[in-house]
Amino acid sequence: MTWEGRKRARFVNSLSGFKSATLIGTHDPEFGDNLSIVSSVIHLGSTPPMMGFVLRPPGKDAHTYKNIKKTGVCTFSHVNMDIVEKAHQTSARYPRETSEFDEVGLTPIRINGWMAPCVDESRAKMGLTLIEDIELENGCRFMTCEVNWFDVESRGIAGDGYVDLNELGGVTISGLDGYHRTPKIFRLSYAKTHLELEKIFDFSEGWANTDSDESI
Amino acid sequence: MTWEGRKRARFVNSLSGFKSATLIGTHDPEFGDNLSIVSSVIHLGSTPPMMGFVLRPPGKDAHTYKNIKKTGVCTFSHVNMDIVEKAHQTSARYPRETSEFDEVGLTPIRINGWMAPCVDESRAKMGLTLIEDIELENGCRFMTCEVNWFDVESRGIAGDGYVDLNELGGVTISGLDGYHRTPKIFRLSYAKTHLELEKIFDFSEGWANTDSDESI
Repeated sequence: MTWEGRKRARFVNSLSGFKSATLIGTHDPEFGDNLSIVSSVIHLGSTPPMMGFVLRPPGKDAHTYKNIKKTGVCTFSHVNMDIVEKAHQTSARYPRETSEFDEVGLTPIRINGWMAPCVDESRAKMGLTLIEDIELENGCRFMTCEVNWFDVESRGIAGDGYVDLNELGGVTISGLDGYHRTPKIFRLSYAKTHLELEKIFDFSEGWANTDSDESI
Repeated sequence: MTWEGRKRARFVNSLSGFKSATLIGTHDPEFGDNLSIVSSVIHLGSTPPMMGFVLRPPGKDAHTYKNIKKTGVCTFSHVNMDIVEKAHQTSARYPRETSEFDEVGLTPIRINGWMAPCVDESRAKMGLTLIEDIELENGCRFMTCEVNWFDVESRGIAGDGYVDLNELGGVTISGLDGYHRTPKIFRLSYAKTHLELEKIFDFSEGWANTDSDESI
């Protein structure tokens, strides 16, 4: 804790482990589209499908937060190998009336007339509505959302529902600024107390006989 | 939403993107040690260092939840390539008085006399105290914790504070059961509106001149 603030921030950010690389798309009727990279998306449940993410304490900027609060909707677009730098560049502090899509060179599209745009170059996109906005003790907000629709390239979806994000070029984030590829090791069978784990190496086959459950 | 429950669970779990692979260690004075793999750890802030994670709605089992509520403490131990299967096996439903450490073959150690054990075979460990226990709308709990100490192999720590988890054999999880390696692509400089991003490929050098900040 004697390290200066930025060094400590880099360290603690890395310590939480690998993280999702997600672009959050929002819209404001007055100021237009916004796009922002976040690394805090987590799964909350599948019935109904819910996800959560953390935003910094809403300050002067906080465009993503303000837009979600105003419109109630956002999109997630997964970052893949081909758009890592453009995705990272969305974290620069552009003015509210500026669209990060234009600035970094990504293409906004609206799916099913959803008010919030998603990223055309992404291979796994979804539209969400805000459920809860929870203020945490340090001022950050934990936002929970329901997934209303998704658009995932079918070659990434295994027969048993598993989405092979690596097949779609997906990346993972470590710390504030480290990007990593994600080659597969294996999938493992549902763990039971008196059974050996089984490994599957060809993810695309799916796993129709797996007795997986709804755990987080 | 017409898919049967397990297929939908696999799908939605994958959709949230890559996740941390963390073993949570807890202790109960009556029932002994517990170890459980979670994939929902996220960074919440660096001053003070805070992390959060999600637990399923506490039911009959919920050993991790009960132990944290009773003792106020837990540990995180990162999963590496050498212990993936043992880590996954902790998700089997062992009785409360059974130690998952013994069952799966991992070694409990107590650092600084911390009541909750961590995993000796892990190369990045930390001890935490519970701050908030938040019930979400679907019954899941979002637990926020302060990091009180850490123990990270020094070869993984860059000069500027960045922890290179891949150097420590770290893995990431996709969905309920997919494990992935994490080879580095690059780190990217702090994004500014009128500057080109710089790439760094040798993570170990650190990045003393980076103007990174405390963003999440």
